[in-house]
Amino acid sequence: MTIASPSASRVERARRLLDELELDGLLVSRNAAKRHLSGFVIARGDEATSGFSGSLLLTRDRQLLLSDPRYLEQAASEAPDWQVRRTRGPIRTELPPILAELGIRRCGAEAEVLSHAAWTSLAAASAVELVPIDAVLTELRLRKDPAELRALEAAAALTDACFAHLVGWLSPGTSERAVAWEIERWFREHGAEDLAFEPIVLVGARAAMPHGRPGDAPVVPGEPLLIDFGCQVDGYRTDVTRTVFIGEPSGRQRELYATVLAAQQAAFEAVAPGVVGTAVDGAARAVIDAAGFGEAFTHGIGHGIGLETHEAPMLLSYDRPLEAGMVFTLEPGIYLSGEIGIRIEDDVVVEEGGPRRLTGAPHDLLVI
Amino acid sequence: MTIASPSASRVERARRLLDELELDGLLVSRNAAKRHLSGFVIARGDEATSGFSGSLLLTRDRQLLLSDPRYLEQAASEAPDWQVRRTRGPIRTELPPILAELGIRRCGAEAEVLSHAAWTSLAAASAVELVPIDAVLTELRLRKDPAELRALEAAAALTDACFAHLVGWLSPGTSERAVAWEIERWFREHGAEDLAFEPIVLVGARAAMPHGRPGDAPVVPGEPLLIDFGCQVDGYRTDVTRTVFIGEPSGRQRELYATVLAAQQAAFEAVAPGVVGTAVDGAARAVIDAAGFGEAFTHGIGHGIGLETHEAPMLLSYDRPLEAGMVFTLEPGIYLSGEIGIRIEDDVVVEEGGPRRLTGAPHDLLVI
Repeated sequence: MTIASPSASRVERARRLLDELELDGLLVSRNAAKRHLSGFVIARGDEATSGFSGSLLLTRDRQLLLSDPRYLEQAASEAPDWQVRRTRGPIRTELPPILAELGIRRCGAEAEVLSHAAWTSLAAASAVELVPIDAVLTELRLRKDPAELRALEAAAALTDACFAHLVGWLSPGTSERAVAWEIERWFREHGAEDLAFEPIVLVGARAAMPHGRPGDAPVVPGEPLLIDFGCQVDGYRTDVTRTVFIGEPSGRQRELYATVLAAQQAAFEAVAPGVVGTAVDGAARAVIDAAGFGEAFTHGIGHGIGLETHEAPMLLSYDRPLEAGMVFTLEPGIYLSGEIGIRIEDDVVVEEGGPRRLTGAPHDLLVI
Repeated sequence: MTIASPSASRVERARRLLDELELDGLLVSRNAAKRHLSGFVIARGDEATSGFSGSLLLTRDRQLLLSDPRYLEQAASEAPDWQVRRTRGPIRTELPPILAELGIRRCGAEAEVLSHAAWTSLAAASAVELVPIDAVLTELRLRKDPAELRALEAAAALTDACFAHLVGWLSPGTSERAVAWEIERWFREHGAEDLAFEPIVLVGARAAMPHGRPGDAPVVPGEPLLIDFGCQVDGYRTDVTRTVFIGEPSGRQRELYATVLAAQQAAFEAVAPGVVGTAVDGAARAVIDAAGFGEAFTHGIGHGIGLETHEAPMLLSYDRPLEAGMVFTLEPGIYLSGEIGIRIEDDVVVEEGGPRRLTGAPHDLLVI
């Protein structure tokens, strides 16, 4: 273990929870938390089924990474600070003897991540008391450290470059699906580990669905095109939306765009350490309300982003003060069913002196 | 609702569980089961966080699809047989009033899918008795119906075509990572919805890691190249492995390849309706044991495949009779640490008359 390991101070913070919550051990099951604390990466597509493999077990003097035979070599190389322990079966047979060996009697575990079957079978198979620790574990990833910010900045720069490429590449007649694939192809061929999520690419009135899926609809002159996309670099993600126009927008379209842009700027200017999250949502909502479209802004202003695309803080309901190091999206939108959807979304970091946009793609109404 | 809807008979079979288990309702939370019964598709990347949205609630006379505002339009179009009910909050606040409205007092739910927090909060917020139904719901997807087999055949044909493309495309010096990306790019540009999983592409001794991740290692003459890959068409997946040689293999390499191939053929010939799953595993293992490499075949012979890459039956432990319509992989391997890894994997369907390979890519030792 070296002092320089980015995970050492994270593990130290996690260990403090043992005293604070009077626990003998922490069982970490969420993939993002596994990577945050150890460096171990669960492959894309394994997420749904690999609840157990790669789980971390942290005590005051030990740190074990539990791995089935498939991941042993990878775990040893990716998580050098952790002792890799080979497991074979499911959590209910594998974990109780290890908990006993380490003298763990009260163990923190993620009730929002472990299945009900895993939790109850584990509780039944050992004398260990399981204590839900979802909220406190989430706290550990709430403020990004310098290594995390570097990865977020790299992902943001790649996302800006992808948008610049798209602006030159887009032309009328291209389908939503083709644009989505061009985003994925470009990201993967320019160094992204993966997408942060499937791109949302919607033409005209289809953009009134905030989570619509790209289809065969072609980009057409006179209609806006909403592009919501993001990538992943060293595990860290972006989530950016731009709404561009193919051919000259109408006066009403310009007005709606200007309203969303003003709301986004108002939210940005409201961000500062000590400001409660809900106030940032309120700042954007006030602008859209004043323009008469309050009902058409149907979701919250933004969500935390990092190793997960959606993580804490959710600003709409975050009634605590923002802190330096928090990173989240600011993404007001106006959705008018049958007519149009416009959203503008940046990723923003809270710094001591105020907010800073990680996203650098231009905001001005863009006519292609 | 039309008679022709592929989901109608599936829903009918699910409804029979209500009587068999004396339940008033079934809550379906697993993404694959949601799609199987309703047609509703959760976007890639949403899987980890969308435990609630798209959940199905089935009673004797009602079938509801619960959707938050993001998915309303998509749900209505993808799942026309289901009544879409708008929800906003988490399961513990949204579901209890709906359960009460429908008169549900005993409700089946998936204990291996719902988080412990979701299950316990739901149990606490309503008077409904929750009954685990994981095993019986899995049974509903065990035998594939004609529509499912058509999708599996289409995915298998695309996978064969991708392999044929790779054979012509591969050349010494190409990195594992570049091969993996070529697979993904080719699949996506030729009609696949998605990959079934991240391709495993490993050169020489690196292939001794059954789940290694592709890296910068180049394809080199004299070394085998293991390629484990699959795609998804209309939700249905493939999982195929070929081990090819770049330049002439040694006599020992040829011998190992012939052993794995003979084991794969032995497993295939063992498949028939009425044969227990473990016997198929045993047939392959006997061949590898006899060649003296039993210790080097470190995993089971295969797993079911369909809407999930890994689903029932797991042949290594499936001690029940195989049935017509089951689809699974047959994938024996020999892994010698520091030396080599060889695996040959096909997707196979059980038919009344015996087994049929869905995978058509050639088995002969291939020298590129």
